Amino acid sequence: MSDRLAAQFAFLDEADKLKSVLRANTLADGSRRENSGEHSWHLALYALVLADHAPAGVNIDRVLRMLILHDLVEIDVGDVPIHSLNGQAHGSAETQAAEARAAARIFGMLPGDLGDDLLTLWQEFEVATSPDALFAKALDRVQPVMQNLASGGGTWKDYGVTAAQLDARVGVKIARAAPQLWAWVRGRVQPWFEQT
Amino acid sequence: MSDRLAAQFAFLDEADKLKSVLRANTLADGSRRENSGEHSWHLALYALVLADHAPAGVNIDRVLRMLILHDLVEIDVGDVPIHSLNGQAHGSAETQAAEARAAARIFGMLPGDLGDDLLTLWQEFEVATSPDALFAKALDRVQPVMQNLASGGGTWKDYGVTAAQLDARVGVKIARAAPQLWAWVRGRVQPWFEQT
Repeated sequence: MSDRLAAQFAFLDEADKLKSVLRANTLADGSRRENSGEHSWHLALYALVLADHAPAGVNIDRVLRMLILHDLVEIDVGDVPIHSLNGQAHGSAETQAAEARAAARIFGMLPGDLGDDLLTLWQEFEVATSPDALFAKALDRVQPVMQNLASGGGTWKDYGVTAAQLDARVGVKIARAAPQLWAWVRGRVQPWFEQT
Repeated sequence: MSDRLAAQFAFLDEADKLKSVLRANTLADGSRRENSGEHSWHLALYALVLADHAPAGVNIDRVLRMLILHDLVEIDVGDVPIHSLNGQAHGSAETQAAEARAAARIFGMLPGDLGDDLLTLWQEFEVATSPDALFAKALDRVQPVMQNLASGGGTWKDYGVTAAQLDARVGVKIARAAPQLWAWVRGRVQPWFEQT
């Protein structure tokens, strides 16, 4: 029991570092860049609040768990902005390999059974083929869109993103899991791209 | 559908403000004060990782949901540190009334059915009589203890807290839901209070 608790708390202490990993987008009020810890919380709230827009069969409790875990690998790898390097860096083989190593190290701090369970859940999110993972990924794409919209453009301005690029890099992954959600968000976004 | 989504996203945008509510304790590395958004994420991770120390019958998925929501009222009320005003401010009638008004306003931004569900869950957390709420409250007390320990004393130094005060304000509420967890944490904390 004592060794097990020591490992669990060592992991939770390590996880604290995610609060110091900065993302490309800002808070809604534009006051500072968002960190990946508070982003993960916001996403969990997105899942709770937008659950009724998930496809039938999606288990929101599993989605919540995935979203709480999904960015822990950034403690080692950092955040790779979706629009950086003309949209090429985010899903690169190099990034994926580095994230897999990070997941092995970080979840490996936990007692074996628990670490295996959480690593498996993270891998399901990454592969993004199950309905739960597809919906979790969709929310992970929606939230920065709303942050950009609230803050007056955010990373769209920083990276010179066009509406077509947003559709290709972000919209496709939202629409495949939550088409009505994307249709609504896309309508809200359109005026920003028309005015710039 | 469109009105419903507009209300859901207005709530999620409002929730972003929790990332700007500062708590008394710092990050584990002491570099800055923790905000209530990232604290809520860390607590959700605590629930996932420490689930095996919950009493039989506790539903961790409900605990997760409570922890994601539990601090939203601080958008209006701010964080009331547990050791402030000699431990008297945190549970005062004034604070509780202000938090209840905040909950009505914030959850009231959501569509009726959804807002009612989340408000009811928040109230269950606040009343803290159900097994799920008691375990959620215990985690909410454990995490700042571990943050203080990691950062070299934190709010214990700031407020001149004694070991007896820690036991009375924090330990009792952890031990009632997770006695073994508190026994382990208490053992880790003891040397800090002996050396000061």
